Amino acid sequence: MTIWYGGDYNPEQWPREVWNEDVALMQRGGISLATVGVFSWARLEPRPGEYDFGWLDDVLDTLHAGGVRVDLATATASPPPWLAKLHPETLPVTEQGVRLAVGSRQQYCPSSPVYRSYAKRLVEQLVQRYAGHPALELWHVNNEYGCHVSRCYCEASADAFRAWLEARYGTVEELNRAWGTAFWSQRYDAFDEVSPPSAAPSFRNPTQLLDFDRFSSDELMACYSAEVEVIRAASELPITTNFMGFFKPVDYWKWAPLVDIVSDDAYPDPVDPVSPAYGAMERDLMRSLGGGKPWILMEQAPSAVNWRPRNAPKAPGQMRAWSYQCVGRGADGILFFQWRQSAAGSEKFHSGMVPHGGTDTRVWREIAQLGGELRDLSGPERGVEGGRVPAAVAIALDWDSWWAIEQPASPTTVSYRHVLFAWHRAFTSLGHTVDFVRADADLSGYRLVVAPAHFVATDAQVDGLAAYAAGGGTLVAGFGTAITDEHLHVRLGGYLGQPLRDALGVWIEEFAPPAGPDLEATGGGAVPTVGLSGEVLGADATGSTWAEVVRVTDAEVRATFTDGALAGSPAITRRATGEGAAWYVATLPDPESLRALAEALASDAGVEAPEPAATGDEVETVRRGDVTFVINHGASVARVLLSGTDLLTGSAAEGLVLAPNDVAIVRP
Amino acid sequence: MTIWYGGDYNPEQWPREVWNEDVALMQRGGISLATVGVFSWARLEPRPGEYDFGWLDDVLDTLHAGGVRVDLATATASPPPWLAKLHPETLPVTEQGVRLAVGSRQQYCPSSPVYRSYAKRLVEQLVQRYAGHPALELWHVNNEYGCHVSRCYCEASADAFRAWLEARYGTVEELNRAWGTAFWSQRYDAFDEVSPPSAAPSFRNPTQLLDFDRFSSDELMACYSAEVEVIRAASELPITTNFMGFFKPVDYWKWAPLVDIVSDDAYPDPVDPVSPAYGAMERDLMRSLGGGKPWILMEQAPSAVNWRPRNAPKAPGQMRAWSYQCVGRGADGILFFQWRQSAAGSEKFHSGMVPHGGTDTRVWREIAQLGGELRDLSGPERGVEGGRVPAAVAIALDWDSWWAIEQPASPTTVSYRHVLFAWHRAFTSLGHTVDFVRADADLSGYRLVVAPAHFVATDAQVDGLAAYAAGGGTLVAGFGTAITDEHLHVRLGGYLGQPLRDALGVWIEEFAPPAGPDLEATGGGAVPTVGLSGEVLGADATGSTWAEVVRVTDAEVRATFTDGALAGSPAITRRATGEGAAWYVATLPDPESLRALAEALASDAGVEAPEPAATGDEVETVRRGDVTFVINHGASVARVLLSGTDLLTGSAAEGLVLAPNDVAIVRP
Amino acid sequence: MTIWYGGDYNPEQWPREVWNEDVALMQRGGISLATVGVFSWARLEPRPGEYDFGWLDDVLDTLHAGGVRVDLATATASPPPWLAKLHPETLPVTEQGVRLAVGSRQQYCPSSPVYRSYAKRLVEQLVQRYAGHPALELWHVNNEYGCHVSRCYCEASADAFRAWLEARYGTVEELNRAWGTAFWSQRYDAFDEVSPPSAAPSFRNPTQLLDFDRFSSDELMACYSAEVEVIRAASELPITTNFMGFFKPVDYWKWAPLVDIVSDDAYPDPVDPVSPAYGAMERDLMRSLGGGKPWILMEQAPSAVNWRPRNAPKAPGQMRAWSYQCVGRGADGILFFQWRQSAAGSEKFHSGMVPHGGTDTRVWREIAQLGGELRDLSGPERGVEGGRVPAAVAIALDWDSWWAIEQPASPTTVSYRHVLFAWHRAFTSLGHTVDFVRADADLSGYRLVVAPAHFVATDAQVDGLAAYAAGGGTLVAGFGTAITDEHLHVRLGGYLGQPLRDALGVWIEEFAPPAGPDLEATGGGAVPTVGLSGEVLGADATGSTWAEVVRVTDAEVRATFTDGALAGSPAITRRATGEGAAWYVATLPDPESLRALAEALASDAGVEAPEPAATGDEVETVRRGDVTFVINHGASVARVLLSGTDLLTGSAAEGLVLAPNDVAIVRP
Repeated sequence: MTIWYGGDYNPEQWPREVWNEDVALMQRGGISLATVGVFSWARLEPRPGEYDFGWLDDVLDTLHAGGVRVDLATATASPPPWLAKLHPETLPVTEQGVRLAVGSRQQYCPSSPVYRSYAKRLVEQLVQRYAGHPALELWHVNNEYGCHVSRCYCEASADAFRAWLEARYGTVEELNRAWGTAFWSQRYDAFDEVSPPSAAPSFRNPTQLLDFDRFSSDELMACYSAEVEVIRAASELPITTNFMGFFKPVDYWKWAPLVDIVSDDAYPDPVDPVSPAYGAMERDLMRSLGGGKPWILMEQAPSAVNWRPRNAPKAPGQMRAWSYQCVGRGADGILFFQWRQSAAGSEKFHSGMVPHGGTDTRVWREIAQLGGELRDLSGPERGVEGGRVPAAVAIALDWDSWWAIEQPASPTTVSYRHVLFAWHRAFTSLGHTVDFVRADADLSGYRLVVAPAHFVATDAQVDGLAAYAAGGGTLVAGFGTAITDEHLHVRLGGYLGQPLRDALGVWIEEFAPPAGPDLEATGGGAVPTVGLSGEVLGADATGSTWAEVVRVTDAEVRATFTDGALAGSPAITRRATGEGAAWYVATLPDPESLRALAEALASDAGVEAPEPAATGDEVETVRRGDVTFVINHGASVARVLLSGTDLLTGSAAEGLVLAPNDVAIVRP
Repeated sequence: MTIWYGGDYNPEQWPREVWNEDVALMQRGGISLATVGVFSWARLEPRPGEYDFGWLDDVLDTLHAGGVRVDLATATASPPPWLAKLHPETLPVTEQGVRLAVGSRQQYCPSSPVYRSYAKRLVEQLVQRYAGHPALELWHVNNEYGCHVSRCYCEASADAFRAWLEARYGTVEELNRAWGTAFWSQRYDAFDEVSPPSAAPSFRNPTQLLDFDRFSSDELMACYSAEVEVIRAASELPITTNFMGFFKPVDYWKWAPLVDIVSDDAYPDPVDPVSPAYGAMERDLMRSLGGGKPWILMEQAPSAVNWRPRNAPKAPGQMRAWSYQCVGRGADGILFFQWRQSAAGSEKFHSGMVPHGGTDTRVWREIAQLGGELRDLSGPERGVEGGRVPAAVAIALDWDSWWAIEQPASPTTVSYRHVLFAWHRAFTSLGHTVDFVRADADLSGYRLVVAPAHFVATDAQVDGLAAYAAGGGTLVAGFGTAITDEHLHVRLGGYLGQPLRDALGVWIEEFAPPAGPDLEATGGGAVPTVGLSGEVLGADATGSTWAEVVRVTDAEVRATFTDGALAGSPAITRRATGEGAAWYVATLPDPESLRALAEALASDAGVEAPEPAATGDEVETVRRGDVTFVINHGASVARVLLSGTDLLTGSAAEGLVLAPNDVAIVRP
Repeated sequence: MTIWYGGDYNPEQWPREVWNEDVALMQRGGISLATVGVFSWARLEPRPGEYDFGWLDDVLDTLHAGGVRVDLATATASPPPWLAKLHPETLPVTEQGVRLAVGSRQQYCPSSPVYRSYAKRLVEQLVQRYAGHPALELWHVNNEYGCHVSRCYCEASADAFRAWLEARYGTVEELNRAWGTAFWSQRYDAFDEVSPPSAAPSFRNPTQLLDFDRFSSDELMACYSAEVEVIRAASELPITTNFMGFFKPVDYWKWAPLVDIVSDDAYPDPVDPVSPAYGAMERDLMRSLGGGKPWILMEQAPSAVNWRPRNAPKAPGQMRAWSYQCVGRGADGILFFQWRQSAAGSEKFHSGMVPHGGTDTRVWREIAQLGGELRDLSGPERGVEGGRVPAAVAIALDWDSWWAIEQPASPTTVSYRHVLFAWHRAFTSLGHTVDFVRADADLSGYRLVVAPAHFVATDAQVDGLAAYAAGGGTLVAGFGTAITDEHLHVRLGGYLGQPLRDALGVWIEEFAPPAGPDLEATGGGAVPTVGLSGEVLGADATGSTWAEVVRVTDAEVRATFTDGALAGSPAITRRATGEGAAWYVATLPDPESLRALAEALASDAGVEAPEPAATGDEVETVRRGDVTFVINHGASVARVLLSGTDLLTGSAAEGLVLAPNDVAIVRP
């Protein structure tokens, strides 16, 4: 095995003679894995049922001869124009009723039985031909499921949605109960009266919206599973599809068990100062989705992307630093989109490993350098490849809550991802590594579990969280948690649900989110906040996003609100419970205060933060196995404080000077 | 009789056993009136033509047994999903051609004959069954007509629009004349060539737009009248439908004579500092629509709503203070949406009189307190119920002008409501009470009439305003008045129309609205203004929104513009005319200046402002009969200066200390 | 001949008796040319095939009797409602699939064969009737082609697009090659699979987008040519259609050779301080489109327009000053939209030569004054009419580049027009006159040619630019130039193309546009910049819009970047080549620096700037023949420094004091 290194390889964009140069360059660049065929359907099946595999045979043979392994895509992500001509009903339809056209990519309705059958037929051909090819290492099903079309409102989707609902609820009476259709006269008399939540006069039914999110996620997963079934019938090789980090439209908790290797596409903004911290969170999610197993960074940009309004290149060293962030947080593969920068088409200004300018370029030099380094780091004996990343702190993540809390007609405007990020960043800035978990998973392996904005909570989740605290864990429930059950029915009597109310010793009387005058009137402006005070927080502490009238039945108040009608009312509480403790945090403290709070919580849970790994700010530290990754995301030099050997240079780590974007990988 | 107190009651959302608890709580809370059935169509008629009234019998009997009277809704505001399945043509279509879906509410085309016939059939059933029910007090037709769908562009709407136009104009030649179709080659050769003003390449014909506004308002009114006809055939009880304050899509002047009691839904923003002043304006409108008769606040929120981006709860006491604002300004009923906060559906986060948290809550305690107080205040002998609210100042309000002045392709961007609010606030801040009037009504009862931005004026209105001044009134014409006749044909020769030009002694040469460089170039920015100077204004006075080149033929100049090409040109003029005076105000002065101007105008008209009712800023004073309402909207305490008795406490009023949001109701 | 003066005349909006008053007023106002019939189709052909020309006979005879010449429009710009009723398929369809309605104007698909045949039939009738009318001076085809509907996505457009593509590419294989359909699986198997770039899931194919731009421009031109063919068969009179300045949707380089006289519609913002400079650029374009021949200002507003959010009137004198800007920059006609301000319809608040307020108005007085002046200036012997405007500096303008560089999925966000304007303004602020040129034209007549952001460059253009420098010209290539060939295929190996790389002595390794964190995160904010340093620039110089990693092979570095990863890297270079020089400018310097750079470039090219023509800032100077126009756009008075005679006053020019917006026309 090896730490995979490579990228998407689309040789059909280039003349045959370039392919030989490609393989020669791949060898120079340390490339070990190429993803082939992602956008090749129209080339492989130029007319319905007519196949042209000769060129792909050539590609695979050429790569194999050059020692490059192949991640073979099923090519179903972008159907050929002839499918739309023959079957216009396969084109997706928007919420506003617009049927989308060919000419870009992903123009298919995920629920279309016609699309699925054509896709399956292609995969059958591919598998039949290449399952035994010696270059093959991995199957890559479709591509970035749902990235452009994750919701479709066409008739086929409506039929599938009705079938999904019938399977879920059995009877229309049960659906009526779950959706609360007694309100607004929405009672359905039969399933065939139900439709997807297309544009409507006012707020759509919230449970209909949530079920449509669940359904749509399931439909994409069903597309995947249909292809997996075909592959598995003929091949033992591992199968993956590339995830996209914190991607709201798809529930990766449900999907992850179906991939053999978790893989991720990540395109952080090179000039956004929060990118390294956000990246750390995304890497931790990928590791967590696989239950701690090594994962693969399937796509990143060698330098600039082309889809932002303004696309900065990555700074010198930034691509390398961020690649090691992945490895440090559990990745056993670093791949790029794409090998050779396109000369034409919609992504020609997306950087490539081989840039438009050729190989006398910074980008190519950095690509080749990293390829060499990763080859040298490969092999379990080096302590990195295959290593596990330990974490004592976990954050509960839940797609239902994400979908629900960001619905319109809610108490206030919440970015679920932002709330999670604030908590994750508070802990990682102290040096802790954080896992993501499902609230109803076995939490006993963690000392501290935070459940922020876990809006939708099943009885099992409410019970599980309460039991975790009772069993000796330190539970931190954040605002907006367990407001509803899985049907979006409010947990009456103070929200949270009885077991959690008991565990925390509080109930919620009313929401009181910070708010300014109507945005309509002011045209935007600053995000409103509320004052906070407490020893666990910083000075001049404020809360944003949410606030609540907390009623304490049996808990200590650790911080209070200081503004307006909330002044003096509890903001943070703690209750000792069994062996553990249960905290409640009724707002989102500002970053400094959240960091202080995280410190207090970790201390309460007995989780020790690691000693600083280096001088200087903005240095990221993460431990994989017994190896520590030290990454300098700051603008100044940092000096390594750990003793041991730097695996990159072979020299002693302590005292090593890290320039901006430089990295040390220290083994004791 | 009594001052009604209660709210929307939707028991179909709850199990039967809750209903008994509801009635017991209603008795504790002083509830005297419940609005039932607003969203019950799908429950009452679960299948076309199959009715289920048993549960509603039970609801009415249970309320009756508990002593709660019933405002019975006709349930036609939200058709059941089966109607859309059976008759998709009843679903409304947007300007962009999107046919809206079921799943929220109000998904019907107001012009649909199919919808109307199904609605009528349901009302027939309801009336037949409940006209004689002893709990019945009031009929509540439909609900918030037009709040989500006030304009429909479907084929049925197009047909109805053509019929409406044919009835209005008789011949297509007359329509061509009225619409000015000689321009842009828009001449119609037959009515069937005309369509609603759907999305078009450029600015739509202005008179077509205005007629479509009139038509659409009429169509909603026709829906109402059709139901009224059914009810009236079998019941003598009063009939209402709930208005929505300054609601642009519907001409309430036309509608108000058709309701037996004016009722209003009001949802001001708790954290917007202008809400109390804006509320005062809305209450004054409701009173004026009924010609001074008492009206009912049909809906307000007990605390937070759920449809703003961020929904603050009402501050302690705020709901009570704003309720008394209604009573002081003529309301004989205070109701809420809704009784029990929903556990599911699109409004579950809209506060209820019985909150999710139950009765050990601030919200419930305030609800119960106010219920008790209003019960004690009831009865004409207490001086409040049934009392009239005197006003010497009136503002002309006109829906045609509202629709027209806010059209695109106008001299500048005007918020008609904002202009009216600025004028209303200037007078109420001085303690005056203000009525709203139609410009062609009998104005002789007022000392001072302001006609701001009365863009569209019929000959009758131009004549009426001029005659009012000649007859001894003090007329104030604001910028943008009488620019066009009712067909949007410009009044040539200086705007205003000959009689008003004569009365005012001015004509308008050109508009010169304050403007900055194209918004496209600057991305927004501050609202442009123009300098003003004059003794009737404040120092550093400015005008915004509009300005004009005023040519004086026979008037005194009271203020001038001070900027740019307008420098030295008249901004405010006065002309003595017969017994009265006629002022012209060619811009919108800043709030301080407008207050100073209002003072000068009132003085000129001989209208005396009342003595201050309390110390402290932001105290609202309004007199109903001989009772004075003093409401402290400020953040500091106020001390009452009036002598008499406080009807709320029974103690002497003078010297009474009012905390923020506290109220005194003083009878001499 | 004469310098034409007049405007759009739409007498069908007014009663017959007004027409006589019109002609009398025209005579008073010095009007010599009236544009008639622009929006008359519905009046001329009230029913399909039934014509009513009597009134138009009357109009032409009345004008002729009054000595006013006629520019007769073909009336095809706004089809009558009956066409849409009879042929709904002639209505245009948006990118989102919305079929637009009647009720405004221009509601036709440019590719509709039905529209074209009806239009042609009307023109045949007009030409047959009026070709010999003695009032006729000029044919005015249609009106502002494409101003509202320049792109249509209906089925007729799709058919025409496919035919256009087949004509362009011959085979679908060639289309696939040009469009780069190997990427994203877009390969077409037949032309009938191709469609216009309607709404699609993600970025549309860039070459498809560009070809659709070219096609759409061609289709509008084909509409024009079809009408010209009809006219030319029966009339020798000159033919024009009114252009709209820098109008992105239509390639005026292609179109201009088809008009006998270039004419322009110009509506600058009266309160935008850049309007005079922008106006100068637009005038220079019109002159350049006609190869230096005199052109006509076909439309401008006498005062305010009505389509901005806020519409300021023109300041006193501003209309006159801007009219002389046109004459100074080559116009032999000054016309307005429209003669008499409409009383109704969508443009009633657009100012007219005869305002709503009549003739006792500033607007009318200025109209009449200018009419008199232009009559006096007419005649070649006065040195103005027919005179040519010399220019030593040229800027390359290219519609393909405009369309392409502003596509989504590009390196950064560029306003092509803004970049051109920045360069134009830098030179004109120094007193230089600038022509616009095609990059593949004969450039030998210019001392200095700037090619900024010439994104798309054919081999001929790349060769031509390189040859220009080699032949002794001073070439300035700006960032983003020659990135691709005409199919949007990247010029690999460092962009620019080999001949330009050689001429400039540089190649581009990578783009590095100034960028801030994602706009999504920050909600907008300041435009990012990068620091610059160099003697040819101002102090504290910055670049915006774009930046590049420039690799120098053989050139002097004249300025460098000073920020971030670019620090120290070349920003501006110069290479001597043959007799000439080739500069490269890798960013857009701030205005002060660009002015300094323009000065250095002009000096390098041996182009001398004229001596100052007046004291004071913001004075525009331009020379036509031997006459110099001096226009004071500033807010303070200016004093003329030129010796000679002022043609407007007949007095000596030197020392003449020009108030704001005043003009001197100086002949030596």
